[in-house]
Amino acid sequence: MQKYTLSEIVHYLGGKLVGNDKTITGVKSLEDANDEQITFLSNLKYRSKIDETQAGAIIVHADSKNLPENKSYLFCDDPYLYFAKVMRLFYPTPKTIGERHPSAVIHPSAEVPESCEISANVVICANVRLGENCRILAGSVIGTACVLDEDCVIYPNTVLYPKTILGKRVVIHACCTIGADGFGNARDMHTLEWEKIPQVGGVVIGSDSEIGAHTTIDRGTLSDTIVGEGCRIDNQVQIGHNCQIGKHTAIAACAGISGSVKIGEYCIIGGAAMFVGHIEIADGTIIGGGTAVTRSIKEAGYYATCFPLQTKKDWSKNAVHIRHLDDINHRLKILEKKLLQSS
Amino acid sequence: MQKYTLSEIVHYLGGKLVGNDKTITGVKSLEDANDEQITFLSNLKYRSKIDETQAGAIIVHADSKNLPENKSYLFCDDPYLYFAKVMRLFYPTPKTIGERHPSAVIHPSAEVPESCEISANVVICANVRLGENCRILAGSVIGTACVLDEDCVIYPNTVLYPKTILGKRVVIHACCTIGADGFGNARDMHTLEWEKIPQVGGVVIGSDSEIGAHTTIDRGTLSDTIVGEGCRIDNQVQIGHNCQIGKHTAIAACAGISGSVKIGEYCIIGGAAMFVGHIEIADGTIIGGGTAVTRSIKEAGYYATCFPLQTKKDWSKNAVHIRHLDDINHRLKILEKKLLQSS
Amino acid sequence: MQKYTLSEIVHYLGGKLVGNDKTITGVKSLEDANDEQITFLSNLKYRSKIDETQAGAIIVHADSKNLPENKSYLFCDDPYLYFAKVMRLFYPTPKTIGERHPSAVIHPSAEVPESCEISANVVICANVRLGENCRILAGSVIGTACVLDEDCVIYPNTVLYPKTILGKRVVIHACCTIGADGFGNARDMHTLEWEKIPQVGGVVIGSDSEIGAHTTIDRGTLSDTIVGEGCRIDNQVQIGHNCQIGKHTAIAACAGISGSVKIGEYCIIGGAAMFVGHIEIADGTIIGGGTAVTRSIKEAGYYATCFPLQTKKDWSKNAVHIRHLDDINHRLKILEKKLLQSS
Repeated sequence: MQKYTLSEIVHYLGGKLVGNDKTITGVKSLEDANDEQITFLSNLKYRSKIDETQAGAIIVHADSKNLPENKSYLFCDDPYLYFAKVMRLFYPTPKTIGERHPSAVIHPSAEVPESCEISANVVICANVRLGENCRILAGSVIGTACVLDEDCVIYPNTVLYPKTILGKRVVIHACCTIGADGFGNARDMHTLEWEKIPQVGGVVIGSDSEIGAHTTIDRGTLSDTIVGEGCRIDNQVQIGHNCQIGKHTAIAACAGISGSVKIGEYCIIGGAAMFVGHIEIADGTIIGGGTAVTRSIKEAGYYATCFPLQTKKDWSKNAVHIRHLDDINHRLKILEKKLLQSS
Repeated sequence: MQKYTLSEIVHYLGGKLVGNDKTITGVKSLEDANDEQITFLSNLKYRSKIDETQAGAIIVHADSKNLPENKSYLFCDDPYLYFAKVMRLFYPTPKTIGERHPSAVIHPSAEVPESCEISANVVICANVRLGENCRILAGSVIGTACVLDEDCVIYPNTVLYPKTILGKRVVIHACCTIGADGFGNARDMHTLEWEKIPQVGGVVIGSDSEIGAHTTIDRGTLSDTIVGEGCRIDNQVQIGHNCQIGKHTAIAACAGISGSVKIGEYCIIGGAAMFVGHIEIADGTIIGGGTAVTRSIKEAGYYATCFPLQTKKDWSKNAVHIRHLDDINHRLKILEKKLLQSS
Repeated sequence: MQKYTLSEIVHYLGGKLVGNDKTITGVKSLEDANDEQITFLSNLKYRSKIDETQAGAIIVHADSKNLPENKSYLFCDDPYLYFAKVMRLFYPTPKTIGERHPSAVIHPSAEVPESCEISANVVICANVRLGENCRILAGSVIGTACVLDEDCVIYPNTVLYPKTILGKRVVIHACCTIGADGFGNARDMHTLEWEKIPQVGGVVIGSDSEIGAHTTIDRGTLSDTIVGEGCRIDNQVQIGHNCQIGKHTAIAACAGISGSVKIGEYCIIGGAAMFVGHIEIADGTIIGGGTAVTRSIKEAGYYATCFPLQTKKDWSKNAVHIRHLDDINHRLKILEKKLLQSS
């Protein structure tokens, strides 16, 4: 475990030390930190916890006032971001150990630099090209002609279908499937049966993106499905064929994005949000959790259509009227007309 | 890559060539096709793109008029279906290479014809029976006593629990789990703890069905969970124990179907739709994306209860009244009564 | 296959035999059972099926009356629970076969008792500790320093990230991922890019819990994500980092639980329910399927906000007014004011 003094942390990350310098051995929450550990206060809702914390140092906002005197503080502009950076200082990303496990199956035509770590039972198919320092963890399957740029990490049991392309430092968590066939089927209107449309595009994921466990990103039909650089995609997200996700967009867990959706850059998509196909979402848009995005969004903003939670009893009483809203509106119009006439 | 002249395509697939015959080397979109490639116009919304496309030939509807003159056309009844068939001509389904990778673990009691392709790290358990030309791709696990008819394809890292039965030409994409235990638990009302109900039925999937990546289909409790022939099931779909899905039904990504649901034939289920348990859906029903199907549907039709997207600000203003719809209805009644009395 | 006489079943499980004793060879539904098999009637909706069943014996509620005379019955307080116990009698949980497949990759530092079953292509990393009689099925990956107590079962292709801790008799179905990084990212408000927050907590799952296929449970950021003992979690559930799920809580398929949610003990969460982050749910709460849980619940009860299903045509007509509910309420107020003034 790394150790840093508070002044070393300031040296690396900026900010201002107020209080005694001391050696810090790790990061914990306000409740759990001891006097050799650092913690942070980002949400002022938890302000009172500062009085009780045993932490050796606290990361706080630069304009904090009336802080308890007997503690050390790191003042900064954005305590949560600073906390993230402190975490990365104490818990740096693991590096390749350059292992090539004997149980791994690597096709002779694959280019696998010696710096790469290839774990047990990994399968690397023909014509794959890995960049330096890639880590392919146990049981993952890298399909034919995939290209991974340097420093990618593929967690266990993930599957890359053939021709998937990853930029630098892409991280893909366990049990993802990248590049499966999109859901392309034409219905024969005479037989009502489905004719499968071969999916021959690919998937391209930009540098510095991270994909959560169990996420599926389908290959394009004719051209590529694209995830821009610096994206953050959570677990169990589904991204349909031909989608384009702009750079630095974040998508929370369980979101489902139909085919041919174009989401802009720097968007934030809430968990379990769902998108109909063939729409475009403006750069910088925020979508609330559980929202059904049923049309294109041309103007950035915060969109959300999640319901007010109620007991089943209250909800049943109210929801039944949703089925008759048109009627309610009609009755209201009649009353308005009557009152207007009579006045 | 295959090449075909337009007249060869007409020979194989029907339709009518208008314009010069020429050799075609592939299929692309209206935007991307060059003069050796074919494209299609299915949605008239994109009609204007015909004037700009560089495509060598365009698949259009038989009653198309006023088309630019300097191009070749294939006239047909259903351009999207025709496009699907052209795709299958140019990109035929890969065939078994008959490989049996030395790393595969095949139980001596399993019947695996020589025509089958068994990739690296596949596990085939006792008493499995594979038909001719099956392809089991890397890392998949075929449980004890599973039976796969001919020409099935199992993509990497998929798991078939014991006794799963697949018809001919079934395709299962990566990381699916077919035949896991259904969610069967009885609550002991004294201790409030759960008693697990062993799930001893199986899963049967009909011929020509295709299952998307990361879909889960649970085994039945006492009898089988059944997916009919020719179904199309997208990624990350959940099908509970004892369900019956009728033939040629399509289910889009992220749909969740509770136990003992019976969905008819030729239905279309939108993405992220959810079904309560123990209901029946009539043949030919269409369910919109994100719809909660809370009761049986006896009459085929198009059902959909997805919300109108709004900004969070507008939604918050409006949604709060959903909680008081019963009250609104009540107030309206009072007004109606008053006005009726006074007139 | 086990056989039991009805009197033996009563001996093991209690209840009261009414009618002839006989040998029973298995359990089937009311429709499918033959005269050597036992069935049950739990839901009185199916009462009439008793007259037609060919079952050799029927589990019924203790206060059942007017039953057909020519059959054997087991009277009990809770037929569904009794059925569960009969199922466990006839289909006991498979035991370890103590196999250690030669293709399994077991790190020399791992503690794997001889009683454990380690199937083909399993990977067990450094410093793992397994209890007696654990079964690790094909293709699963047990990460560094995981600790599994006795009698755990890990189905194929599941991934446990490092340091995951399981109690006794925990069952994890196929293709789960336990302990992947939580979705922790701080946004740099100057660049609008994401800074990843290393996730260094773990996951702890209590004894006797069962986790469905394809469920993901993220590791905590600083401390652990916790699932209590005796929980039942269905397929494709997502549990975010730092969550705490109380003991004996059941969560149905496709539910999505954001980070830092604390769900109480003995709760029942319906399928596809979604939870915003940082909320607390009281012990014994029931959440209906598809409900968005948007705030803490302090009082146990049945909460549900699922929509009334309608045809798309009817829904479109009504739903449009949801966007104007505030206006409808406003118009209603005006009318009320007018009528009040005029009266």
